[in-house]
Amino acid sequence: MSIIFYDIPSTLPGIAWTPNTWKIRYCLNYKGIPYKTEWVEYPDIEEHCKKHGIAPTSKWRDGSPRYTFPAIHDPSTGIYVAESLLIARYLENQYPDTPKVFPGPHDLSALHAAFSKALDVEIAPATQFIISAIFPVLNPRSEAHFRRTREKTFGKKLEDIAPQGEDRIAQWAQFRAGLGNVNKWFEMNGGGPFLMCDVLSWSDLVLAGETIWYRILWGEDSEEWKDIKSWDGGRWGKILETLKEYETVM
Amino acid sequence: MSIIFYDIPSTLPGIAWTPNTWKIRYCLNYKGIPYKTEWVEYPDIEEHCKKHGIAPTSKWRDGSPRYTFPAIHDPSTGIYVAESLLIARYLENQYPDTPKVFPGPHDLSALHAAFSKALDVEIAPATQFIISAIFPVLNPRSEAHFRRTREKTFGKKLEDIAPQGEDRIAQWAQFRAGLGNVNKWFEMNGGGPFLMCDVLSWSDLVLAGETIWYRILWGEDSEEWKDIKSWDGGRWGKILETLKEYETVM
Repeated sequence: MSIIFYDIPSTLPGIAWTPNTWKIRYCLNYKGIPYKTEWVEYPDIEEHCKKHGIAPTSKWRDGSPRYTFPAIHDPSTGIYVAESLLIARYLENQYPDTPKVFPGPHDLSALHAAFSKALDVEIAPATQFIISAIFPVLNPRSEAHFRRTREKTFGKKLEDIAPQGEDRIAQWAQFRAGLGNVNKWFEMNGGGPFLMCDVLSWSDLVLAGETIWYRILWGEDSEEWKDIKSWDGGRWGKILETLKEYETVM
Repeated sequence: MSIIFYDIPSTLPGIAWTPNTWKIRYCLNYKGIPYKTEWVEYPDIEEHCKKHGIAPTSKWRDGSPRYTFPAIHDPSTGIYVAESLLIARYLENQYPDTPKVFPGPHDLSALHAAFSKALDVEIAPATQFIISAIFPVLNPRSEAHFRRTREKTFGKKLEDIAPQGEDRIAQWAQFRAGLGNVNKWFEMNGGGPFLMCDVLSWSDLVLAGETIWYRILWGEDSEEWKDIKSWDGGRWGKILETLKEYETVM
């Protein structure tokens, strides 16, 4: 029985676009676990989760519960689970004969969780730029939901979130500096190609999920992606090359 | 030959007080490597580092190079090195028969570096509170240097940095929430006692270095430390209990 993998659709040719669900798509593909994607529009996520007893993963700024994807359903065990690290751990434990994303004798979940937090902080300046590439590719119901929630969070219209002029240059430099800090972490272990040096682990898939987001939304030939690929000795493009065979959308 | 460990003095009974050097003191004590502390006042750190060819570890906000402790000198190899993760790696490699702070077959340096970044972000709200406990215990030359550099960074007098009234309550709650997030990372691996579950690693010493800072500067019986100890099932006090035998200042 295939796993059901819940993701948010777009009008792009490959449909898949959002970084957090890409982390689990990479994980499922890397492990070679059979799955089928079920596409759920943004305004239907909360009801979908409540119906299946999937807990909220975070809170909105006003404190109300926030339901997010990725989530999966495994018909062979009956389980529903959301939040990417929890899903990855479930898959690792439930399918022990598949390639490991948590290699080694010790439980590194806490360090991987901290990695995700640190990465989020370093790449945070990218969000204000990429938002203008997100909402035009959503289906109308998702776009309306995205617009309502994000305009509340940012306190401005989606069209006005991207910085302009000198601020644009400064914020883009800040994003580059953030990825530069991530690159320095790699250099602590001799340069990679993986965060744990010569062995792939969960945090590499987290990083790839964020990176493929840039490539998909801005596009292969965009100024943004070409710029990012030129940074840090080409590390960010190379990560996607290394994981290219796990990009399939099923 | 003992390692020379460079630290910044205070007028407190135990002298040692600053979180970043505590990480290396814990490391030296845990590994049982003989060392002697050499106390260097803040305004002398830059000249000390330049004299011994120790590179700056970061930058001030205006872009000028920033020289920081911890740093060590190992007379048996002639090496000088600064920055806590680099020092820990040097000690692990140079003294392979001592207890490991990087256990396991894989190089986890990148994940440990990311942990430090994530921890810094989560506990950042504490800084504005603890500054008022730092400058009164520095020796006069260090206090003057600390005052000049930090007042430039914060854009206000040291005495005015601690938040007041409702802002104080909100910022303290933010600090508690940040440590709560760190606690959730522990819970991902079954609750600890260590970040890698049942085995101590470098990031535990990083966390202990920050935690002992609170206890030393605010004091065992302070409202602040008693409050912190009551959070997250007592995790933050227990970390120091677990590492109590490695608190010696030599």
